[in-house]
Amino acid sequence: MEELRPQPANLSPLTPLGFLERAAYAYGNCPSIIHNTTIYTWLDTHRRCLQLASTLSSIGMERGNVVSVLAPNIPAMYELHFAVPMCGSILNTLNTRLDARTISILLQHSQSKLVFVDHDFTSLVLEAISLFKPNTKLPILILIADDEASTPTSSPPFGFMDTYESMVEKGDPNFNWVRPESEWDPMVLNYTSGTTSSPKGVVHCHRALFIITLSSLIDWGILNRPVFLWTLPMFHANGWSFTWGMAAVGGTNICLRKIHVSTIYGLIKQHDVTHMCGAPVVLNMLSNSLNTETLDKPVKILTSGAPPPPPVLLRTESLGFIVSHSYGLTETAGFVVSCAWKPEWDLLTDTERAKLKARQGVRTIGLAEMDVVDQESGMTVKHDGSSRGEIVFRGGSIMLGYLKDPVGTSKCMRENGWFYTGDVGVIHTDGYVEIKDRSKDVIISGGENVSSAEVESVLYLNPAVNEVAVVGRPHKLWGETPCAFVNLKNEITEKPTEKEIIEFARARMPHYMAPKSVKFRDELPKTSTGKIQKFILREIANAMDGL
Amino acid sequence: MEELRPQPANLSPLTPLGFLERAAYAYGNCPSIIHNTTIYTWLDTHRRCLQLASTLSSIGMERGNVVSVLAPNIPAMYELHFAVPMCGSILNTLNTRLDARTISILLQHSQSKLVFVDHDFTSLVLEAISLFKPNTKLPILILIADDEASTPTSSPPFGFMDTYESMVEKGDPNFNWVRPESEWDPMVLNYTSGTTSSPKGVVHCHRALFIITLSSLIDWGILNRPVFLWTLPMFHANGWSFTWGMAAVGGTNICLRKIHVSTIYGLIKQHDVTHMCGAPVVLNMLSNSLNTETLDKPVKILTSGAPPPPPVLLRTESLGFIVSHSYGLTETAGFVVSCAWKPEWDLLTDTERAKLKARQGVRTIGLAEMDVVDQESGMTVKHDGSSRGEIVFRGGSIMLGYLKDPVGTSKCMRENGWFYTGDVGVIHTDGYVEIKDRSKDVIISGGENVSSAEVESVLYLNPAVNEVAVVGRPHKLWGETPCAFVNLKNEITEKPTEKEIIEFARARMPHYMAPKSVKFRDELPKTSTGKIQKFILREIANAMDGL
Repeated sequence: MEELRPQPANLSPLTPLGFLERAAYAYGNCPSIIHNTTIYTWLDTHRRCLQLASTLSSIGMERGNVVSVLAPNIPAMYELHFAVPMCGSILNTLNTRLDARTISILLQHSQSKLVFVDHDFTSLVLEAISLFKPNTKLPILILIADDEASTPTSSPPFGFMDTYESMVEKGDPNFNWVRPESEWDPMVLNYTSGTTSSPKGVVHCHRALFIITLSSLIDWGILNRPVFLWTLPMFHANGWSFTWGMAAVGGTNICLRKIHVSTIYGLIKQHDVTHMCGAPVVLNMLSNSLNTETLDKPVKILTSGAPPPPPVLLRTESLGFIVSHSYGLTETAGFVVSCAWKPEWDLLTDTERAKLKARQGVRTIGLAEMDVVDQESGMTVKHDGSSRGEIVFRGGSIMLGYLKDPVGTSKCMRENGWFYTGDVGVIHTDGYVEIKDRSKDVIISGGENVSSAEVESVLYLNPAVNEVAVVGRPHKLWGETPCAFVNLKNEITEKPTEKEIIEFARARMPHYMAPKSVKFRDELPKTSTGKIQKFILREIANAMDGL
Repeated sequence: MEELRPQPANLSPLTPLGFLERAAYAYGNCPSIIHNTTIYTWLDTHRRCLQLASTLSSIGMERGNVVSVLAPNIPAMYELHFAVPMCGSILNTLNTRLDARTISILLQHSQSKLVFVDHDFTSLVLEAISLFKPNTKLPILILIADDEASTPTSSPPFGFMDTYESMVEKGDPNFNWVRPESEWDPMVLNYTSGTTSSPKGVVHCHRALFIITLSSLIDWGILNRPVFLWTLPMFHANGWSFTWGMAAVGGTNICLRKIHVSTIYGLIKQHDVTHMCGAPVVLNMLSNSLNTETLDKPVKILTSGAPPPPPVLLRTESLGFIVSHSYGLTETAGFVVSCAWKPEWDLLTDTERAKLKARQGVRTIGLAEMDVVDQESGMTVKHDGSSRGEIVFRGGSIMLGYLKDPVGTSKCMRENGWFYTGDVGVIHTDGYVEIKDRSKDVIISGGENVSSAEVESVLYLNPAVNEVAVVGRPHKLWGETPCAFVNLKNEITEKPTEKEIIEFARARMPHYMAPKSVKFRDELPKTSTGKIQKFILREIANAMDGL
């Protein structure tokens, strides 16, 4: 057997980019992207991406260059997921809710050569550029002038070299796209943070994105030609890989510029949406609004990013959504764990089902191995649902590493061959993993660990509570005590007092775990993807008078 | 970016073997295998495979060893697809329709260390062993005593070391299975021919089988927990990778020992079968029998191995089957091309639809590239539906090569990076490929490839034969059967009859490969350079009454 080694015929690099050409053959006249009155077919999308890649190539974008984009979920944003790597460059999607200072830091850190900017964000990017260190080479700016396919703007505004549509139009539809030399070549760069001085730029290679795309399609059970509504920002881990996934299965991408409940329900009805994704906050929004409607046909919704509170799960499902729950990090390129549903669970009560569905679950087939290891001994924890440890992964979709951060990389990608998530969880007796806390999100009170997630899930049971986040508040005697930040439902007429909320919690959990203080807020600070920004709340709690 | 290289955390070898452990968690109590009164769950299958792998390991089966199996589609055959590679060894499934001589050649060629033998094939294997060259090390023989989970036979028969169930029973359920050191490590060995002196043993690595499994599930659109009826022999390219695929999606494998139409319809009804595969001969059988029934629920059937005749497609679909057509070779580990269906085709007439569906189609997402190249210039043929060329592939599921046959390997895996299929086809204007001929001169009978060269070389052993050419003759049930055109030696006084020639062949090769008809000719049609013009003989055979 030894003489049988890899050869050129089977060494073709794994990459999701080839899905597009295939889609043009297999689904040529089927709609690829719909946005307002714009409708593209897969033939259009294939041609447009080749043209854009050709223009990018002709103005000098090449292998290893970073090309950034700041745009909402519009057609250009989708196309760039193919066009940029098809000229050999690395796609860097930026979070549209960042401030100019952070954007400036990220563009300099990535040495971005070119930035595509949606018309809503031009002044933001110009401000970011103005904050560049002196003598730094500035990126080329390209304006995405309009959501609609339109005649190219005659001339781009000051500071911009060209417009997106003009670049598409002048490109060669027969461009011979730049295939990766190795499947380990970087293809995307996604920043997970950047407000501090050390941005975490996650770099993924073609191979990882091929694996995560196939694995995610199978895990969620996506058949041919779904209708996918883009309620999840594409800048967030490339829409959990469903950007490339939709080309693989010939899906229709329904784009939308802004997330409004009424828009979402309207698009679901108009286009017979079959699939959508979103953080739990999206589920909350869909099920909490005055505009909620019961769906005519079931819509599959995949949630990730935080454990969905059981009451939110129940409300969403009661409207006709079929909720799946999964777990992953930007570092894993998408979700690598999901709560695979067992038929016997259908027989349980709603509450029991919601509780089971809130667990993260089992690894997907794209992940080689998962474990939960004791943070001191490094050994696998008992499968008892209570022994805690850090969740660790091993598999083909784990990032190459953080850009320009070998220390940060080696901290989570250890020599023992495991990737350390920083999330603390347990393994239940049935082998399903459940996150108990981010390891940095554990409140230690009087020597006892208090999981903020557990406190929150109890407070969510209170009918007056809309959203809640619990953090540690310094305490002279106990070290820390749980402090709850609560956003009440609008429609509540008799608002509960701090004391009533505390009593509510104390009646339902060990007293040491119940919040010692409750702060009401009209809004909780969030990231663009709807994750509550606990670090801000922690700062507030730290600044309070010690108890 | 250059410092970001692969690391242990993302370098885990791709392999389909890990799907089994995941299935035990995600689908633990769901049925994995059903055969008559035997029902296993995924927990059972995981445990049994670990136990068997542990016993194999304890008797010395290790990395790189070949372990063979000769069995129909029974539970043991399924389990061996995991258990054998889980002890590090290479699984070699043998065609149950081979004769003792061929099996003897293959077992010696592969240097098989151990053979699992179903009770129906014990005398066949013992005969094969008796034909081994002197002083050849003989393989260990293990008896698969019964289809049913049963108490192990007290002692195995003469020549057999143990029974299958006894090996399962004595194994360790906590066995730490042997993971591949590299994803390029060989995992299976499948023979595509072997009656002549140069058996073609296709070797596939873990990586190729991971890729083909995911690609096939997505291409066929398999959701979670299908009910899969094993009408396709697992020995045939490992059941087109659906052996591992069923573990990936928690499917139920409905086993059956023999293909009978009434059995198939009975099992479909009894188990609510959702998916099945088969060569066109299976479709023909299903739709031609007196026992045909209209299905209560649609069943998806995937056909491959030969272009399905349009009338067969139509009849099968009229019964409630949803037919998909795909194309692949043992060398590609499964199907890598499929006739992706376009919604606009639903509007066509039955005949037009069947004609479109009989085309091979477009590459699947697991294949990197496909082309049809002119056999002289090597250039891509025109997309005109009539310019012929050889179909070539490039991608991750192409074999490592033929075992001990570097010349045969380099003949099809060329230095230009393409794998040459030997099949001749055209590209239609819509980019879909259709096979027009097989340059290798293969007859496809009942889904099995018969090499006309092999049949000819056997017939040439007959002292009365001067020249012979074998081509396919249309057959209602089998698609084609071998038809021999024979020119006898002048000096022969007692000319053999058709029956004698057929008997001569049947005594020397598997029966399905022997000619079913023999036509004597004073002269065979030849080119000016003396090459027999097979296309003329094929025309004659096509014009004969169908058998």
